[in-house]
Amino acid sequence: MDALIEQFRSILGPSGILTGTDVSSRSDSWPPMGGCQARAIVRPSGTAEVSEVLRLCHAAGQTVVTHGGLTGLVGGARAGPDDLVLSLERMRGMEAVDRVNRTVVVQAGVALQTVHEAAEEAGLLFPLDLGARGSATIGGNISTNAGGNSVIRYGMTREQVLGVEAVLADGTVISSMKDVIKNNTGYDLKQLFIGSEGTLGVVTRAVLRLRPLPRSRNTALVALDDFSKVAELLQFMDSALGGTLSAFEVLWNSFYHLIVADGKRHTPPLGSTHAFYVLLESTGGEEENDTLRFGRALEEAFEQGLLADAVIAQSTQQRNDLWAIRDDVEGMVKKLYPPITFDISLGIPLMDQYVHEVHVGLTALWPSARMITFGHLGDGNIHLVLTIGSLDPNDVHSVEEIVYQALGRHGGVISAEHGIGLDKRAYLGHSRSPEEIALMKTLKQALDPKNILNPGKII
Amino acid sequence: MDALIEQFRSILGPSGILTGTDVSSRSDSWPPMGGCQARAIVRPSGTAEVSEVLRLCHAAGQTVVTHGGLTGLVGGARAGPDDLVLSLERMRGMEAVDRVNRTVVVQAGVALQTVHEAAEEAGLLFPLDLGARGSATIGGNISTNAGGNSVIRYGMTREQVLGVEAVLADGTVISSMKDVIKNNTGYDLKQLFIGSEGTLGVVTRAVLRLRPLPRSRNTALVALDDFSKVAELLQFMDSALGGTLSAFEVLWNSFYHLIVADGKRHTPPLGSTHAFYVLLESTGGEEENDTLRFGRALEEAFEQGLLADAVIAQSTQQRNDLWAIRDDVEGMVKKLYPPITFDISLGIPLMDQYVHEVHVGLTALWPSARMITFGHLGDGNIHLVLTIGSLDPNDVHSVEEIVYQALGRHGGVISAEHGIGLDKRAYLGHSRSPEEIALMKTLKQALDPKNILNPGKII
Repeated sequence: MDALIEQFRSILGPSGILTGTDVSSRSDSWPPMGGCQARAIVRPSGTAEVSEVLRLCHAAGQTVVTHGGLTGLVGGARAGPDDLVLSLERMRGMEAVDRVNRTVVVQAGVALQTVHEAAEEAGLLFPLDLGARGSATIGGNISTNAGGNSVIRYGMTREQVLGVEAVLADGTVISSMKDVIKNNTGYDLKQLFIGSEGTLGVVTRAVLRLRPLPRSRNTALVALDDFSKVAELLQFMDSALGGTLSAFEVLWNSFYHLIVADGKRHTPPLGSTHAFYVLLESTGGEEENDTLRFGRALEEAFEQGLLADAVIAQSTQQRNDLWAIRDDVEGMVKKLYPPITFDISLGIPLMDQYVHEVHVGLTALWPSARMITFGHLGDGNIHLVLTIGSLDPNDVHSVEEIVYQALGRHGGVISAEHGIGLDKRAYLGHSRSPEEIALMKTLKQALDPKNILNPGKII
Repeated sequence: MDALIEQFRSILGPSGILTGTDVSSRSDSWPPMGGCQARAIVRPSGTAEVSEVLRLCHAAGQTVVTHGGLTGLVGGARAGPDDLVLSLERMRGMEAVDRVNRTVVVQAGVALQTVHEAAEEAGLLFPLDLGARGSATIGGNISTNAGGNSVIRYGMTREQVLGVEAVLADGTVISSMKDVIKNNTGYDLKQLFIGSEGTLGVVTRAVLRLRPLPRSRNTALVALDDFSKVAELLQFMDSALGGTLSAFEVLWNSFYHLIVADGKRHTPPLGSTHAFYVLLESTGGEEENDTLRFGRALEEAFEQGLLADAVIAQSTQQRNDLWAIRDDVEGMVKKLYPPITFDISLGIPLMDQYVHEVHVGLTALWPSARMITFGHLGDGNIHLVLTIGSLDPNDVHSVEEIVYQALGRHGGVISAEHGIGLDKRAYLGHSRSPEEIALMKTLKQALDPKNILNPGKII
């Protein structure tokens, strides 16, 4: 290892490598808390240096864990004492936004928020958005195929990326950096690196697609009394708003009751007896007319008997207050301590029955268990946050079995947007067949035969 | 071979296999004209039968060319005398549309138009659309990642597919048939089979995503006097219409002049002296208000000096007349006989310069060469149709070199939506690096080590 470190130092320069307490004082998970065990951290400044580092690692059989913003939630960046950490923190280069082509070329270490700001300055939008935007990097977003708040309108990270440059395990640079939407010239290689959590290659650069910056934003919270109406409302609003629906976040009564109803953390915008609450948002191109259209659509939904109650945000402050309810992670953690959280997808028609089954299963084992349900229902993705008063690994495992077995029965998936990493690897078989997992291993073997890239993650 | 055919017959029944003139009277290319040379055509009825056929082929080293609707344009379905054709013509099953989840499960042999009709009957839209909709199959659309008329609004086939079932070369069934939008459970295996033209597996079933059926449609043809205004108009309209722009088809003056100006095939809706014409369309959720909004946006574009002239369709007939200009393939072929056609992508800012370079290169060799340019500019995709009065292979090759070398210089791609197949294989290197092509071969080797699936196509 020492010889290898000296080679890295000669390639990257003294500031390109960290060892000793410079490593152990860093973190490899979220929330950050120090204790990275890796042998060393290398910090290349560009694709060519990443390639040289990997070529040496490949020859030496040195395992590599790539680090971006370290905001992942499934242990995908965790490194053991034998691993080398490859940090992209010095790869924050960004070319000027191409306003005409509506694209931007970035290095993988650029923070998501930096791209937001550059796009907005050019009068454009980079639609991928999530809470960790200040730290999360584009490379990490790509490697995990991040989801977030705008999927219903714009899709996941996969759909925001036109080109990717990645380095394979042996140092080969695969530069698929075309800046066009349509490209059917053979296999779409960038798909290999999107969502594969650094196990098939290290993403070093990307061409991102930008969109028009919305000129209007309308937001409402509505209450409904049964689940079939929630599904019907989604279709109705999506149709009435002509495809400009940009959020359809559903809060089950369990959520609203626990987080909002007592009035301590939020002023309740609606009564707390309804079965479901939906936070609706639409973005468009004309401020005044879009507001009128949004109001008309809600009025029609009311007349059709879909809505029990509704409040439309009349100011930015009111809109922020409504979103603060949906995003009150602190409130959830405080009221459901210690929390166990899930991020799952399943077909919309099955959701309410599924949530019921999980609740029954939980309370059979832990009569005092409490659970809230909410999420991006428009994308088929919901989150469960629950507590059984324990984080004992055996108990957590029993909870996971209840949640994932019911999900497997309904054909759902155990990770909608967070990925598999280390933490969900044991449950992959609830969403994937043995043949699918075998094919994943075939790909891994073909691209990384020495298993040096993020070994042990996903599969 | 005879023993193998007997095995197929016993698995598939007598109607499951065709030989002799039943094969040679069929076609394997477009336009159809008979002469399929394959040893036999097998016609399985479902995934299990496809799996059994491929298992036997794999054991025997028998090469297989899969056939869908045979509307591809790059020779991807061509079969030699040693090949077996696997036709999905008996796999036309379709489950009921799930109106709540907005999905439908189909077998790969279902025609695109059949999906359109089923979706529309359920009040929904399957947005993939192209001229060959009556014959083209979903399996073929997936295998070629088909593009078409709605990409600017909804993306290519890749973005319409939630789940895929495919059979690998050795008969293994990979069933990734989740009906959810968000699924980050390991490698997204379906991406392997989308756009790989039947070389990595045979797609047998899919879960398709449906969208709200638009309630309004507004169409206009506008004229502009320089290319920078075309690019500016795209951004302006996309923004002003709040993301509901559903077509932005540009006709260079070369097209309008040749096909429209003489008034013989079309009544010219605008004068013929403008440099560019754009066919604009927007779909939305409110008929009356969307029409007003569309008019306001065009008016504003006019006031900003972007437009030189404009006509808005006032009826379905007028809309159809405008689209008939854009879609007048017969007119193009008649006026540019014999035609040579191209389907390319490149960055929007480079397009006009590129077209100019190609024209200069062509007329230097063939002073009487004529070329028209048009296409899905909003997607970065244009078509060139030209004639040099010859289809001599050496001449065609020279033309291809002119078109693709200029494209390579500008970082464009040689196939936007048609694929590579056999016909563009020699030019793949103009759009892909040696490292990319080597990685494609690595994937092919890993998934189909005996090279039995559509051998010789793409790479």
